[in-house]
Amino acid sequence: MSAPGARSSETRERILATAASEFAERGYAGTSIGDIAAKSGMGKGLVQYHFKAKADLAVAIVQATFAKAPFANLLDETVPLTGIAAIVASIRGVSGAFRDDVRVRAAVRLVREYQLIPVTFPTPYLGWMDKVAGSLREAMEAGEIPPGLDVEREGWHLVATFNGVQETSHRLTGREDLPERIEEMLARVLPVLGVTDVGKYLDV
Amino acid sequence: MSAPGARSSETRERILATAASEFAERGYAGTSIGDIAAKSGMGKGLVQYHFKAKADLAVAIVQATFAKAPFANLLDETVPLTGIAAIVASIRGVSGAFRDDVRVRAAVRLVREYQLIPVTFPTPYLGWMDKVAGSLREAMEAGEIPPGLDVEREGWHLVATFNGVQETSHRLTGREDLPERIEEMLARVLPVLGVTDVGKYLDV
Repeated sequence: MSAPGARSSETRERILATAASEFAERGYAGTSIGDIAAKSGMGKGLVQYHFKAKADLAVAIVQATFAKAPFANLLDETVPLTGIAAIVASIRGVSGAFRDDVRVRAAVRLVREYQLIPVTFPTPYLGWMDKVAGSLREAMEAGEIPPGLDVEREGWHLVATFNGVQETSHRLTGREDLPERIEEMLARVLPVLGVTDVGKYLDV
Repeated sequence: MSAPGARSSETRERILATAASEFAERGYAGTSIGDIAAKSGMGKGLVQYHFKAKADLAVAIVQATFAKAPFANLLDETVPLTGIAAIVASIRGVSGAFRDDVRVRAAVRLVREYQLIPVTFPTPYLGWMDKVAGSLREAMEAGEIPPGLDVEREGWHLVATFNGVQETSHRLTGREDLPERIEEMLARVLPVLGVTDVGKYLDV
């Protein structure tokens, strides 16, 4: 028999998993604590013992996904990539998470619906932009791209372009063509940065 | 005294103007027919004589904005631009409309909130992508860009990149930096298309 603490943390995880799938599917306005209780097969009282209000569930899901930097916990930090390889891996990693991880889809949808939700979410994008700018600095030092690039500005545009590709693929094909669109995006943005050996980084 | 038909159409326009500003500001879920009646200074009955339900107002605003092709009515068709100049003008025109036209902001927000609204909206993006692909074909024929470009694919990426720049600027600065970000975007995407004389098209 597990300790009461472990059991409580399992219950909490089960509630969060159900809530993520409801938020991802129906959005904040379309989801209720009652639905989450019914779908997770537990009483509403037990759900509310862990999360008093729907907004608390939204915050828990968003914070778990965007903990330190946005998506930081999605990237495999044990593979010590740097420079352009790190940027390419982070773009592919985030794109894969959008397709495969319901908590990421829930978090992104909740952050987009922030006007409906009575809590303050962390500002999206900034952490990832900062990480990309740091990798661009490494790439410059390693001679992968020419010197003199405004790394903050290029970081902004890489993240913004990813946002647009992700959202457009989501809206037009339910993200079915996202992996292909991401490779097309990389083939377009890497030369803009001055990467000369683009083929080295592409999945073709 | 104006004819009853003219007066009725003025009332309709006043309702739509108020509804657009409420939807743009508060979203679909945050707006009610009662609010719109109160803010436009008319009775709820008169509003409902013109628009039975909130969803009918949303449809009227979205259809007026995306009438033929998305944003077609925002572009000044009296200036007969073609090729790359037409693409640059349409990107700047749509970007300006996002900042300056509350009906466009309302329509875009409503289309983004489509999961909350019990009607079918026109699929976004496709009309504009098609228009951009046509302009790229003209640009190829005129020798502004090299032959052999996949114009549908490039049209997809131009619209997707615009979407990302617009949304990221919206989220981080309330679109304050959008004009500047759009010029930066053009400076990055035109060379990707093979435009050689990029400076000719940029506002610098």
